Amino acid sequence: MPVETIASIAALRSRRADVRRSGRTVGLVPTMGALHAGHERLIEQARRESDCVVVSIFVNPIQFDRQDDLQRYPRTLDADRAVCERLGVDLIFAPTAEEMYPEPPQLTVDVGPLGDHLCGPFRPGHFRGVATVVLKLFEIVQPDRAYFGEKDAQQLAIIRRLVRDLNVPTAIAGVATVREADGLALSSRNQRLSADERRLATALFQALREAERQIGAGERDPAVIRERAAARIPSSPHLRLEYLEIVDPDSLQPAAVVQPPVRVAGALWVGSTRLIDNLLIA
Amino acid sequence: MPVETIASIAALRSRRADVRRSGRTVGLVPTMGALHAGHERLIEQARRESDCVVVSIFVNPIQFDRQDDLQRYPRTLDADRAVCERLGVDLIFAPTAEEMYPEPPQLTVDVGPLGDHLCGPFRPGHFRGVATVVLKLFEIVQPDRAYFGEKDAQQLAIIRRLVRDLNVPTAIAGVATVREADGLALSSRNQRLSADERRLATALFQALREAERQIGAGERDPAVIRERAAARIPSSPHLRLEYLEIVDPDSLQPAAVVQPPVRVAGALWVGSTRLIDNLLIA
Repeated sequence: MPVETIASIAALRSRRADVRRSGRTVGLVPTMGALHAGHERLIEQARRESDCVVVSIFVNPIQFDRQDDLQRYPRTLDADRAVCERLGVDLIFAPTAEEMYPEPPQLTVDVGPLGDHLCGPFRPGHFRGVATVVLKLFEIVQPDRAYFGEKDAQQLAIIRRLVRDLNVPTAIAGVATVREADGLALSSRNQRLSADERRLATALFQALREAERQIGAGERDPAVIRERAAARIPSSPHLRLEYLEIVDPDSLQPAAVVQPPVRVAGALWVGSTRLIDNLLIA
Repeated sequence: MPVETIASIAALRSRRADVRRSGRTVGLVPTMGALHAGHERLIEQARRESDCVVVSIFVNPIQFDRQDDLQRYPRTLDADRAVCERLGVDLIFAPTAEEMYPEPPQLTVDVGPLGDHLCGPFRPGHFRGVATVVLKLFEIVQPDRAYFGEKDAQQLAIIRRLVRDLNVPTAIAGVATVREADGLALSSRNQRLSADERRLATALFQALREAERQIGAGERDPAVIRERAAARIPSSPHLRLEYLEIVDPDSLQPAAVVQPPVRVAGALWVGSTRLIDNLLIA
């Protein structure tokens, strides 16, 4: 039986009220679609932990800092529905942009200093857009638990802090990154890579692993770690390291002296595709 | 029987869940205490429209732009409880600042262009603090309806837009301003006025009424209206008009040509006390 797909906020709220009356718990997996094995892990964990699993599929325009990225973002709703069906999802919430934003939002969530590092400076407005749409989804779906991938570590840290600072009654679960055999973190944007670019794309993971080795060997100077890690990125006209930073896992602030636990995170341009990845070093 | 008073968020959530299971509706009246007849109107309307009436009493530190105003803000919890008891309130939620802010909030609500005029420029961070604490209270109490006074018109417009932009499932009710016989809008801060200041304080209402007369007589130039209205403020070392603006009631933006419906709003310093008031001109 195909998974029920709801596009209207009012209809979703009505179904949510039914579930509440029946005393069942709701797990939400917020996605932008183009579901891959990373998303499948999120859905599988939600399936194990919740009575009713809702997957939202919404390519959120206000979190894109570049119009071409929004336009090129893969949209594969039929395939996504098949994944959801296979994994026993109860409900897909797939609103239009008009349904979510009938007018440009005036009130938004300011993420404060959590947006000051890593992707923040390179994607102006991105995390404001993420935090705002996630809060909207929480208000609409009112999930008991919500699932986010550790691949987007800055997003995850921001959402954890969002529910804490604003008293949102939703528990946040982080789910481990899924990787290809060569270490490339799964991402919907990987679909855009040419065969050559795909081969080069593993460089980001190699750089993060080098940082992990350096820290494991006792190196504490972030500039030294960064330099040795960046040296793992092959010299290629198709590759450009946007950043590689070592930050506190919760506050996302860099420190003058690296003291685990830390998160090493980077962004690498591969041709015209921007990939991110990170490792927690405990 | 004294009204049950709850200070802990966890205890409030537990009581909220009980009310939800019993199918009763919840009306919230968010206040900073020092309850007066204006608050009483809010509570009375909530009492008529809701099964369970919750009054929150919390002097929210992050919405005060001046430390002396926070310190001087009247705190009258015993009298407030008596008012709540008399009006049949079911529950008082009176958390400490530590309960609401165990750590300084990093994520806050940015109110956008709704904060650009009226009180916004004169009280930096005020409406961010208001919108953030109201959203927190909504997340904790999860009211079906919440009640706000029209005296704080900018706050009311911002909260109306907050629930719309963020899909908060709470209906917002605005309740008419209560005035003294000479027109002075009721406010907790009126308690601070000396007898002389109290006599002078009606000047703000007189100025707003003059603006109303000018608009009613067909005047459309905001500068002319403002000048004639401000002329109603007596020349006194104890009085200083901070602003008098004519704005769209929803967007809170001024227009080059006044076209009703508009809201005329002003702030008047009376000695060391800042008073605000406004009129809707339909």
